[in-house]
Amino acid sequence: METVVQFTGPRQVEVASHESAGLPPGHLRVRTRYSGISAGTELTAYRGTNPYLTRTWDAEARLFRDGAAGIEYPVAGWGYSEVGEVTEVSPELVGRPGVPAPGDLVWGIWGHRSEGIVPVERMTGHTLPSGLEPLAGAFARVGAIAYNAVLAADIHVGEDVAVFGQGVIGRLTTRLAQLNGARVTAVDALDGRLATARSYGATHALNARTDARRRAHPR
Amino acid sequence: METVVQFTGPRQVEVASHESAGLPPGHLRVRTRYSGISAGTELTAYRGTNPYLTRTWDAEARLFRDGAAGIEYPVAGWGYSEVGEVTEVSPELVGRPGVPAPGDLVWGIWGHRSEGIVPVERMTGHTLPSGLEPLAGAFARVGAIAYNAVLAADIHVGEDVAVFGQGVIGRLTTRLAQLNGARVTAVDALDGRLATARSYGATHALNARTDARRRAHPR
Repeated sequence: METVVQFTGPRQVEVASHESAGLPPGHLRVRTRYSGISAGTELTAYRGTNPYLTRTWDAEARLFRDGAAGIEYPVAGWGYSEVGEVTEVSPELVGRPGVPAPGDLVWGIWGHRSEGIVPVERMTGHTLPSGLEPLAGAFARVGAIAYNAVLAADIHVGEDVAVFGQGVIGRLTTRLAQLNGARVTAVDALDGRLATARSYGATHALNARTDARRRAHPR
Repeated sequence: METVVQFTGPRQVEVASHESAGLPPGHLRVRTRYSGISAGTELTAYRGTNPYLTRTWDAEARLFRDGAAGIEYPVAGWGYSEVGEVTEVSPELVGRPGVPAPGDLVWGIWGHRSEGIVPVERMTGHTLPSGLEPLAGAFARVGAIAYNAVLAADIHVGEDVAVFGQGVIGRLTTRLAQLNGARVTAVDALDGRLATARSYGATHALNARTDARRRAHPR
């Protein structure tokens, strides 16, 4: 049996069970150890506010338009930040370079389910380095999002950078920008997040609610 | 009296004394505390191998050509990495924003001499931050050279960088590249320099003489 988290309607969550499927060629089976919740995207599906639930995405106009829903309840297995242990490898893949072996810890995307069946091309090179705290693998995807932002910002040592919002991706951005040589001013409305941002290298922390009238860089 | 270091001929160094000059308008007088030696440029003047001593620089062709010497012995007061204390400020400059005050520690270029008379436009904003070890000011100019190299290399967090040569500027480059997010491989032929490079953040250190046949990144 495998279990999967699904939203059956706005603000309705359940854990469903299914028979485990057989493993098709070209795939790996993974037993989930961690699955990160994406607080932004997933809450819209949970709350029923995700625009795909009621409208159609017009890719050319880059707008949502009235029309057929792009996704419908039940929404099963969302999540894109999984860590798990390989339990089965399709026989023809065994020993191929870069393919994780049974027992390996891997990171990837197979959603909030107890086991994933994942195409090998999405698992190649996804074995966690030995010695790494496995939970860290759940941040690989959000880390890549923050990393892209930092690379796109083209930061160089000694520059000043402000990061607005210190949620998961904001704090990862703060840390990566600091590692990229920036003096980071972290901005959020929650002091707890700002404290974490400081511990991850922010030079200045600005509470947008309570510090708004103060200087960020007192002299 | 002020004293100045001068090369009177190849491999001949002396310390000469002169009367202190009066302070012209628009200038500051500085008593030298440190003066960094530029091991590359200055040794060529000391040894007599500097091409300017025997030839003419053709700026258009970007070549040295036979012709009149661009510099001649005695070569007095070389050096471009000074730290000192302001002892006199031309009266009309007193209190102007950014102009160092008597007693301020400043960094700048006035050569290997006991006191410098420096135009104010080259001293504005050159007051050392309080709390900084004054000797660090002697690295401002060479630091800028290394910093330019790091900025020109357009490094981003997670990239690999090799720095060939771990003299003063090479080690500053190693450190700034590491602060800019690079994994630095430091290369030199002297183990002592490589040890310092590691302590300043180099991930790999490669002795170009003894490690040349080994892998820099063992697996």
